[in-house]
Amino acid sequence: MNPEKLKIAILGGTGNIGEGIILRLALQNLMPEGVKNEIIIGSRSRETAEEAAKQALSELGNYGFDTSKIIITGNTNLEAAQAAEIIILTIRFDYVLPLLDEIGDAIENKILITPVVPMAKEGSLFVYKPPSEGSAALAIRKKVPQSTKVVAAFHNVPAGKLKDVVKCKAVYDTIICSDDAEAKKFVMELTRNMGCLKPLDGGPLNQANTVESLTPLLVNLAKLNGLKDLGINCS
Amino acid sequence: MNPEKLKIAILGGTGNIGEGIILRLALQNLMPEGVKNEIIIGSRSRETAEEAAKQALSELGNYGFDTSKIIITGNTNLEAAQAAEIIILTIRFDYVLPLLDEIGDAIENKILITPVVPMAKEGSLFVYKPPSEGSAALAIRKKVPQSTKVVAAFHNVPAGKLKDVVKCKAVYDTIICSDDAEAKKFVMELTRNMGCLKPLDGGPLNQANTVESLTPLLVNLAKLNGLKDLGINCS
Repeated sequence: MNPEKLKIAILGGTGNIGEGIILRLALQNLMPEGVKNEIIIGSRSRETAEEAAKQALSELGNYGFDTSKIIITGNTNLEAAQAAEIIILTIRFDYVLPLLDEIGDAIENKILITPVVPMAKEGSLFVYKPPSEGSAALAIRKKVPQSTKVVAAFHNVPAGKLKDVVKCKAVYDTIICSDDAEAKKFVMELTRNMGCLKPLDGGPLNQANTVESLTPLLVNLAKLNGLKDLGINCS
Repeated sequence: MNPEKLKIAILGGTGNIGEGIILRLALQNLMPEGVKNEIIIGSRSRETAEEAAKQALSELGNYGFDTSKIIITGNTNLEAAQAAEIIILTIRFDYVLPLLDEIGDAIENKILITPVVPMAKEGSLFVYKPPSEGSAALAIRKKVPQSTKVVAAFHNVPAGKLKDVVKCKAVYDTIICSDDAEAKKFVMELTRNMGCLKPLDGGPLNQANTVESLTPLLVNLAKLNGLKDLGINCS
């Protein structure tokens, strides 16, 4: 895997943090270091994915970036996963396991990144609702081929700040967990180049439960304290 | 309860964050607003508590503060709890329930603050180990008289920074949970005056589990990333 020329699939990349991840990974192509990422948005329908790709390109163009050096395409989830070396799951937990069925062996030997947080609203606040495996990360680990390198990352990143690629100057910690040391290091480097994220080594995948549970906590803190778009800094 | 003249018991205040809490609450007496706190350190033995009180006073004196306006005394846990209006439990979870037996009804109608985090080391990392009630806060709630106002606070505060009352200029978030709105507000105000802490409303007491679980996460992040004395900022 050449870290300077990566095909990255963002499955379900049309909602929430998907958009910010797409824009920031695409913008790495404009860095002087000569990174050449190809971003493939995956969706159930190829048309929806192609439309999202066009929108992302046009958004970057509107910001004034030179989009001639940026490749963002759209495809079905399966074809996006087949084409890519790194797959990021930016979808709700309810849809994750069916999606993994859909893409089947296309993720053999690849890095699979999960920012997925199982949570539900109870009354006016959100509550973390991990599956019986202990976390979304561990449920995904159980479901995918043994050769797939599961990395948990990007859970606690404020979506609004992440997609604000021009104005957001803040830096948020993102805690990264994996049982594969090499894959974890790789994702930490990828993260470091995203502009507003500072990667922290969160240990093995079984540590991801606390990281996942931080997301409903941040949503609740925002609501209870009249704040918005909260992220984490472990200072 | 007069917020400008409080008797605050810090039970087991000889270890970890207890020391920082004692120093910072005592220093409120030097604020121009005329706060007059009396700090009572509680311990199993009166002598140990009195010794800790002497040490805290001498530490503040060595920093150059005018200790003539500061009252820090030591007593048994029971007598400290009886004398105080606010009781802070700065002890390990294993000792909390026996201690609550020891102080019995002395905490009727009072504010009881728990920064307690049940955790254990597994391999090289720490793991959150909540009791069957879901959190230390809820186990304490179940154990104490109905009239006691249980407030969860100060879990994620870096001990080293908290007791560094002169040099530490950083501000750390502390997430405060309680089912008693008035008590929560009171503790949030008390916290705001401690100099390096920013209180955030964390909602009801059943939200304390995630806040408690952040402490082992921070300890692990420090170890894994070569950092120390980590706290939280929800920015």
